[in-house]
Amino acid sequence: MNSGQGRDSTRVRIAIDAMGGDHAPQTVVEGALLAVRDLPVDVVLVGDEVQLGELLAKEGGAPKGIEIHHASEAIAMGAHPVEAVKRHKDSSIVVAARLVKEGAAQAMVSAGSTGAAMASSLLQWGRIKGVERPAIGTVMPTLRGRVLLLDAGAQVDCRPSHLVHFGVMGSTYMERVMGCKEPRVALLNIGEEETKGSDLVQEAYPKLKEFPGINFVGNVEGRDILSGTADVVVCDGFVGNVVLKFAEGMATVVLDLLREAIKENIRSQLGGWMLKPSLRAMWKRLDYTEYGGAPLLGVRGVSIISHGSSNGKAIRNAIRVARESVLGNIVGAIASQVDG
Amino acid sequence: MNSGQGRDSTRVRIAIDAMGGDHAPQTVVEGALLAVRDLPVDVVLVGDEVQLGELLAKEGGAPKGIEIHHASEAIAMGAHPVEAVKRHKDSSIVVAARLVKEGAAQAMVSAGSTGAAMASSLLQWGRIKGVERPAIGTVMPTLRGRVLLLDAGAQVDCRPSHLVHFGVMGSTYMERVMGCKEPRVALLNIGEEETKGSDLVQEAYPKLKEFPGINFVGNVEGRDILSGTADVVVCDGFVGNVVLKFAEGMATVVLDLLREAIKENIRSQLGGWMLKPSLRAMWKRLDYTEYGGAPLLGVRGVSIISHGSSNGKAIRNAIRVARESVLGNIVGAIASQVDG
Repeated sequence: MNSGQGRDSTRVRIAIDAMGGDHAPQTVVEGALLAVRDLPVDVVLVGDEVQLGELLAKEGGAPKGIEIHHASEAIAMGAHPVEAVKRHKDSSIVVAARLVKEGAAQAMVSAGSTGAAMASSLLQWGRIKGVERPAIGTVMPTLRGRVLLLDAGAQVDCRPSHLVHFGVMGSTYMERVMGCKEPRVALLNIGEEETKGSDLVQEAYPKLKEFPGINFVGNVEGRDILSGTADVVVCDGFVGNVVLKFAEGMATVVLDLLREAIKENIRSQLGGWMLKPSLRAMWKRLDYTEYGGAPLLGVRGVSIISHGSSNGKAIRNAIRVARESVLGNIVGAIASQVDG
Repeated sequence: MNSGQGRDSTRVRIAIDAMGGDHAPQTVVEGALLAVRDLPVDVVLVGDEVQLGELLAKEGGAPKGIEIHHASEAIAMGAHPVEAVKRHKDSSIVVAARLVKEGAAQAMVSAGSTGAAMASSLLQWGRIKGVERPAIGTVMPTLRGRVLLLDAGAQVDCRPSHLVHFGVMGSTYMERVMGCKEPRVALLNIGEEETKGSDLVQEAYPKLKEFPGINFVGNVEGRDILSGTADVVVCDGFVGNVVLKFAEGMATVVLDLLREAIKENIRSQLGGWMLKPSLRAMWKRLDYTEYGGAPLLGVRGVSIISHGSSNGKAIRNAIRVARESVLGNIVGAIASQVDG
């Protein structure tokens, strides 16, 4: 790759489900505008053209790099994913995946229903040959950097071979997209010894150990996920989803308690005010919006799932990650790893 | 129960594994001394009589309510629980369980190996009739009070009927020991709808719903565990153990970051100093040492497992909880619930 030319300046075209997310389409449009301002991307906003046109008009019209692709429907958060995706052929999320399939975009991003994002990607693109089950990877901040936890909810009942593929896909993603060298892949367990844990993890352990091309470092326990001892932590989608949501819940509790503590009296209020800039910097390190969404790994295309409550910055970072996944050829890299 | 007489003043005799725990026997002795000072309990310190005698001598001799029962061995943290318990018949944890079996004590407490505490209780006392698998319940602080999460690691591969019994035992414990009226029992899942989740939880759901005498409130997600929407959260021992240890890990990370934020500059140091008393009060609400250890439920006796890093206060509170479990007749109550 030539410096100044190659990867850093390569334009990538990304379709985004503009109607998905708690604050869509407003925040999605904001994120797209942020993205085209400082990244070499073209963004296709997929959704209601009237609403999207009005939002862009407020910002002085669509800047270079942004266009609208009309979709007449949107999938509600509560809907059954597979049914909804099959029935609503002109929904923003289905159309976004179709644009990728047809080559009109190279990746898709959605902050809507995770299930619908998965279903539309999987049904239209299919799985990478050799991958038995796709997985959702979630990047979490650690004391020393970040860790990819997967699966975060794509496959709740897993077989040992699924966990092995999760390890391979996670390793590939951390290396290709997050720039992590020889990612340390660990198996989430209830003890460090090889003989610990459920039947599932006990069977997965030797398979992960023997799989060529990944740096398997053994078991880690729940308390190690955030300590930075591994770059990729593998678990079934039930456990991963519970941990991910528990982390969100616990962060909320800690913040609430901190706010209460600060409010307690005049002394604490003053102390809180003085500490605020440093607390802000601390919080930024834990801020999921910096991490750019969760990749759906194992499908034949790049699909980034952004948090439902994403703000503009989170959407912008999801677009960045989508671009890097395309440039890192994550699909091809997983295919060659899994297929050996 | 007569006021001033009944339950509040009833003396209970508790055997404690004095050699178990990261800082044993020192902290165990401290905890026992704290307990006999303000609780109507007699504590039998089970362990090396020379060491224990010396520790008590330093405190001016054994006060009323404390006695030593010699045990010549101790089980190491890393040992295989069942093997170690079978081989080391005179280890402190095995002897403590035997004292309960023989009626020389009414409950046992240990801060040693969780597996060894389980194995010695289970092998010597057996299971309550009708209970298929024992469970470890862990009390966690929530925004509104506290929640019992179980199983926290006793049974990693569960059947639906196991989860049902966990719900029943957890409900009984919260009602009888923690004074919670009609505890709300929830199933930990990755979505709120009945049809969500793994095969295990989907099969457990209707069984929990139909089980007489418990107040089943449906599914909760990971983010709800600490929000106070349920009093008892049921899951298999793999998931529970991961969540519990993840919570510990995350608490460590948050504390580390908070300390770093406070250290950052002079302004933040001063702010931290001013906020300190209020932060302390906040931390106290999250402090596991207040909650007195985890009950092993489903065995025919009262066995309280205290955290390995327990200090004196945590041990004292584990003794308190053991006493309340005896007075609440937790074993009899579970037996009659499960057996119908």
